[in-house]
Amino acid sequence: MRSRTSLQVRLPMLIFALEIVMLVLYSLFVTYDDNANAKMQNNETNPMENSMYRDYPYFADVQVMIFVGFGCLLAFFRFYGFSGMVFNFLTAAFAIQWATLIQGFFQFYYDGKIHVGVINLLNAEFACAVVLISYGAVLGKTSPVQLVVMALLEIPVFAVTEWAVLKYIRINDAGGTILIHLFACYFGLGVTFVLYRPSLNSGHAKEVTSYNSDILSVMGTLFLWVFWPSFNSALTFKGDDQHRAILHTFIGLSSSTITAFALSAMFNKRGKLTMADIQNVTLAGGVTVGASVDMMISPAAAFALGIMGCTACFFGYKYLTPFMARRLRIQDQCGIHNLHGLTGLISSTAGICAILLATEETYGPSLYQIFSHRAPPEGDPKLAELRQLIPGLKPGLGRTAKEQALFQLAAVFATIAASAVGGVLTGFVMKLKFMASPSDEDCFDDELFFDVPSDFDTGIVLKMEKILDEKSQSIPMNITKDQ
Amino acid sequence: MRSRTSLQVRLPMLIFALEIVMLVLYSLFVTYDDNANAKMQNNETNPMENSMYRDYPYFADVQVMIFVGFGCLLAFFRFYGFSGMVFNFLTAAFAIQWATLIQGFFQFYYDGKIHVGVINLLNAEFACAVVLISYGAVLGKTSPVQLVVMALLEIPVFAVTEWAVLKYIRINDAGGTILIHLFACYFGLGVTFVLYRPSLNSGHAKEVTSYNSDILSVMGTLFLWVFWPSFNSALTFKGDDQHRAILHTFIGLSSSTITAFALSAMFNKRGKLTMADIQNVTLAGGVTVGASVDMMISPAAAFALGIMGCTACFFGYKYLTPFMARRLRIQDQCGIHNLHGLTGLISSTAGICAILLATEETYGPSLYQIFSHRAPPEGDPKLAELRQLIPGLKPGLGRTAKEQALFQLAAVFATIAASAVGGVLTGFVMKLKFMASPSDEDCFDDELFFDVPSDFDTGIVLKMEKILDEKSQSIPMNITKDQ
Amino acid sequence: MRSRTSLQVRLPMLIFALEIVMLVLYSLFVTYDDNANAKMQNNETNPMENSMYRDYPYFADVQVMIFVGFGCLLAFFRFYGFSGMVFNFLTAAFAIQWATLIQGFFQFYYDGKIHVGVINLLNAEFACAVVLISYGAVLGKTSPVQLVVMALLEIPVFAVTEWAVLKYIRINDAGGTILIHLFACYFGLGVTFVLYRPSLNSGHAKEVTSYNSDILSVMGTLFLWVFWPSFNSALTFKGDDQHRAILHTFIGLSSSTITAFALSAMFNKRGKLTMADIQNVTLAGGVTVGASVDMMISPAAAFALGIMGCTACFFGYKYLTPFMARRLRIQDQCGIHNLHGLTGLISSTAGICAILLATEETYGPSLYQIFSHRAPPEGDPKLAELRQLIPGLKPGLGRTAKEQALFQLAAVFATIAASAVGGVLTGFVMKLKFMASPSDEDCFDDELFFDVPSDFDTGIVLKMEKILDEKSQSIPMNITKDQ
Repeated sequence: MRSRTSLQVRLPMLIFALEIVMLVLYSLFVTYDDNANAKMQNNETNPMENSMYRDYPYFADVQVMIFVGFGCLLAFFRFYGFSGMVFNFLTAAFAIQWATLIQGFFQFYYDGKIHVGVINLLNAEFACAVVLISYGAVLGKTSPVQLVVMALLEIPVFAVTEWAVLKYIRINDAGGTILIHLFACYFGLGVTFVLYRPSLNSGHAKEVTSYNSDILSVMGTLFLWVFWPSFNSALTFKGDDQHRAILHTFIGLSSSTITAFALSAMFNKRGKLTMADIQNVTLAGGVTVGASVDMMISPAAAFALGIMGCTACFFGYKYLTPFMARRLRIQDQCGIHNLHGLTGLISSTAGICAILLATEETYGPSLYQIFSHRAPPEGDPKLAELRQLIPGLKPGLGRTAKEQALFQLAAVFATIAASAVGGVLTGFVMKLKFMASPSDEDCFDDELFFDVPSDFDTGIVLKMEKILDEKSQSIPMNITKDQ
Repeated sequence: MRSRTSLQVRLPMLIFALEIVMLVLYSLFVTYDDNANAKMQNNETNPMENSMYRDYPYFADVQVMIFVGFGCLLAFFRFYGFSGMVFNFLTAAFAIQWATLIQGFFQFYYDGKIHVGVINLLNAEFACAVVLISYGAVLGKTSPVQLVVMALLEIPVFAVTEWAVLKYIRINDAGGTILIHLFACYFGLGVTFVLYRPSLNSGHAKEVTSYNSDILSVMGTLFLWVFWPSFNSALTFKGDDQHRAILHTFIGLSSSTITAFALSAMFNKRGKLTMADIQNVTLAGGVTVGASVDMMISPAAAFALGIMGCTACFFGYKYLTPFMARRLRIQDQCGIHNLHGLTGLISSTAGICAILLATEETYGPSLYQIFSHRAPPEGDPKLAELRQLIPGLKPGLGRTAKEQALFQLAAVFATIAASAVGGVLTGFVMKLKFMASPSDEDCFDDELFFDVPSDFDTGIVLKMEKILDEKSQSIPMNITKDQ
Repeated sequence: MRSRTSLQVRLPMLIFALEIVMLVLYSLFVTYDDNANAKMQNNETNPMENSMYRDYPYFADVQVMIFVGFGCLLAFFRFYGFSGMVFNFLTAAFAIQWATLIQGFFQFYYDGKIHVGVINLLNAEFACAVVLISYGAVLGKTSPVQLVVMALLEIPVFAVTEWAVLKYIRINDAGGTILIHLFACYFGLGVTFVLYRPSLNSGHAKEVTSYNSDILSVMGTLFLWVFWPSFNSALTFKGDDQHRAILHTFIGLSSSTITAFALSAMFNKRGKLTMADIQNVTLAGGVTVGASVDMMISPAAAFALGIMGCTACFFGYKYLTPFMARRLRIQDQCGIHNLHGLTGLISSTAGICAILLATEETYGPSLYQIFSHRAPPEGDPKLAELRQLIPGLKPGLGRTAKEQALFQLAAVFATIAASAVGGVLTGFVMKLKFMASPSDEDCFDDELFFDVPSDFDTGIVLKMEKILDEKSQSIPMNITKDQ
């Protein structure tokens, strides 16, 4: 008899259906953008000025983050390493393909076609990051079918929100704090709220790490850490803006990292370090500098933001996550609310402050390039004047700093609302019967969805420890342990 | 008494002899190419236009694939992780040095010297990839002495074949499908045919994976996956060609990845995923798009190629590999015939179709740049005309699409023939007595060639499981396992 | 009662104090450099010519080396993987921040401000590498408090030495052989000399590797190997100089790698390979080519340097390290004297030879760019002449080759002296009571500073092996082991 969680029919059916749909849509609607189209090249085209050379290095760095960084980070459970790493692979590969289509439709559609270049893939990777962050909330409690469905639904909600916010509210969000981190966080919380499993609030025997899985997870953290400056700067303006984005991200991450070590030791009963803090809290600074990452906030501000984000994130893990699980029915498995939500809120606030404080004295005429909605509208004589200083400056909306700040605020609320609602609705779909959702008992166990090698056996491993425990009185130890 | 497989004399003798030869050859024949030669620089040389800035980023990406990607991927055996990773390191380091010389002699030799720049190293890395793919066929059954000898012989056969095909048959093969994947595959099959070990057809006790080795191997897959677009685009024309190569590789890999998950679950008896599929079959799309990777095949075609390659590769593993081992005496340890041979044949066919379908309407005048052998020959008035659209267009051979397609076909057969014969002959050399070849029993065991740490002991580990198995009736379990 | 090695108060106090100091200093003194300053951009600034595009790719590569490469390499102990990897993370993050300030003060300070760009971070990473190399000497025997203090003190000593050597002695040291490797080595030896633990000379029960930790460490080696060309070339002149630096590093590393395999097998009693050699000795070539990495030494010389460095390094591990521990009270845990000291001395010698042999015939007018101190001084008519060949050539000191060689020699001795004295003094500070230094017995044990997962238990693991050992007579084995 086929098991309730067998993937034999469910997963292939879902994937093949999606592939047919995508193949048809790709055939009908997807073509090359001008930089990838042989026909558009002529004697005036300099091959080395192809847009790909500006985008691909950042795309490649973010690829490492998505596939290796997230993959290792999510493999931190002792009996759930295969699933953590491999479901991440599946979800990411699907999400990027799907986002290329959906985002392409909203952002790169003209002449009846979606025009694809490396820049689309880069955008799609950010959409993919959104899905993977949300995945963190339900890690260990979902089948691959559910995860593909989540990606399938989250990407369109995200693409619409992104498009609406950028087109109608028009905000500054270079590092993607609002549109990526806040969206992903509240979407994930919405999903996990619906998938609530009361019995897991008291813990689960397999919800543990091992020595190797902890190290693997730190490797994931390190890959994310190392390439985060590329992530935060990939979509900024080229030149000094991108330069600042790299500086701020690096400084914010560094200060957040050393703060995480201090807090971890300080709030541990025995004055030791906790690996979960090293794996997660160290990264808080990367999110916190996001919303103002390309602005002239000063290196010291990036330093301070790293410390603040890290602190909020740390105490979030300590107090807020347990509280949310017990009282609000929100089981946030990887604590995405701490690493992306709280930090995202701080970051958005910092972004608003940076907008309010931005003056022509600090930025020079570039002010109207970075805060493009503050540029004078077409026809304004000031625009012509500015164009002598910055040729090709695009006309803006003539917003004041305060107006822009209010729009930022509106975007924060709109994004949170859209994502939370989208998450809850997606959660209901994921709860449908044929989704192969694991039983409470089978959570955090690779054996449910994988053929596992002979040395993997939750039973054997635990029995082994039991035997050794029993023997431990009778056998003299040659190494004294510290207490 | 010294063991039959001791490396104490054999390996140093071989390596020191090779080093002396290489040092002499480097001294006599190797000098810098103009971009690396201080003397060639003057006030008209723009340092930032040095060819190195075009080649090094791709070189570095391929380095990660060769050393980390392959290294981890090949470490998938439970008791053979050291060997898989470390022999890869040795073989790759030697192969690149050696290929720099041999390929340099065929491609970069003038004025009595081989002129070396980063572009040579990049070419040599591709030659190295050839050796490492072939290595996959004999993984676990060869000594490091045999592997170095294999690299020593394979590189010249490859370099001659490459040179002859490019110079006389003249083909389009941007992603190296024909010259790299097909060559490597049939060379490796030739070697393993000669090294046939009948007793291993019934399996080997140590031919298993472990939980950690499986995860390590997936990490290797992920590094290969992430940087494959760099691999496939490293040697294309700069500009839109390279741009398309990146797009197609990414799209092909993605569709191949999700297809692999679907097939893996579908053909597993219990509806679970198999790690070997995730480690290998996901990558098939990268090979399949290779031969047409820089052409205007459309994104949808890349998508379809990924699915087709993945499907062929999957069923190859399932049916063809066992059949070849039992009936054809070809034991293909890592299934390179599936991942590089079948996909390579599909890719070559797709390349031929793309050539036949290529028109000036789709490509514009770039047609004669991408399909350079179709450009009009020197003196043809059409060439002068085209040069007004694309200055500096190189004269070609004036081939028609059909002619070019036939030459592609010829190249496929010539490459397969040359590599298979080369592989068989190399196999005979590797079978010589003093090559420290492991006995059947010692295959797949690190202890043969490594000092291993105390926790590595195939005996202890298996005994441990035995003890636990015996105890398992008497001890009550506190965790119920799913069936 | 709080343990003598509890980090609860010590680590947070130290880190928070440092953060406050750094935050104040960043606020007062740190601003953006012109390439990161929005105000400096105008219609004559081409965004794509921002200095960041020249520096960031190398910065990112070195980041991978520092955080992932070193992190994995130093995690080679069986019971000390958390500490090896995670203390590296803490120390590196702090060291880069701190070096940005201190080096910035010496090298990028004008108009009352330190001007920060990606180039500063790149410089700071090199300073960080210095600290991490020194860390290798005391791995396993130090608390995180001690390591942060070491970074705190080593960075200023290094920055002053670097500044003094570059400003007053003025040397060629593109790969950082003298200033990075020799400095780091002798500083580390100074520290470990003071922290001498006699009882550890007879070995320590936990000073062992495991199968997984050995593989992890090789991964670290591979990441260092792959990106070493970026490390050695990051700070050279752009153009052909950087091109040569990449070529030489790659060639040197390759020949050093295959030599390491030969020596490892040759000097092993049973003719097997030793993982420690693969992890360390393979990298010797990267250091050995350092001092002459951008000069016209010829590819063959890089090849030979790789072999020489590797040989010295190998025998250093075999004979010198044990000798130094027993006789000179210098316990060099990771053998940094072999990998950075001996190779550094060979490299410095090679650099001096290369300087003595450099002629205008080989280099053309670039001679005076590479060996900038040999350029004619301002006012010399030869300078005007050269400027017609190389516009913008900076005036030098008019040194002869011999003079420059003597200055190189002086720099070697000055650097060694400064670093050794600095190291000894730092060692005394690290020995102070409240530094949470582990007892001899607790060395090489993660449990001292980490909450460890349940499968980590030095006691249980060793007991398990004991039980199995006892049982091994009575249980029949189904796998025969080779001897």
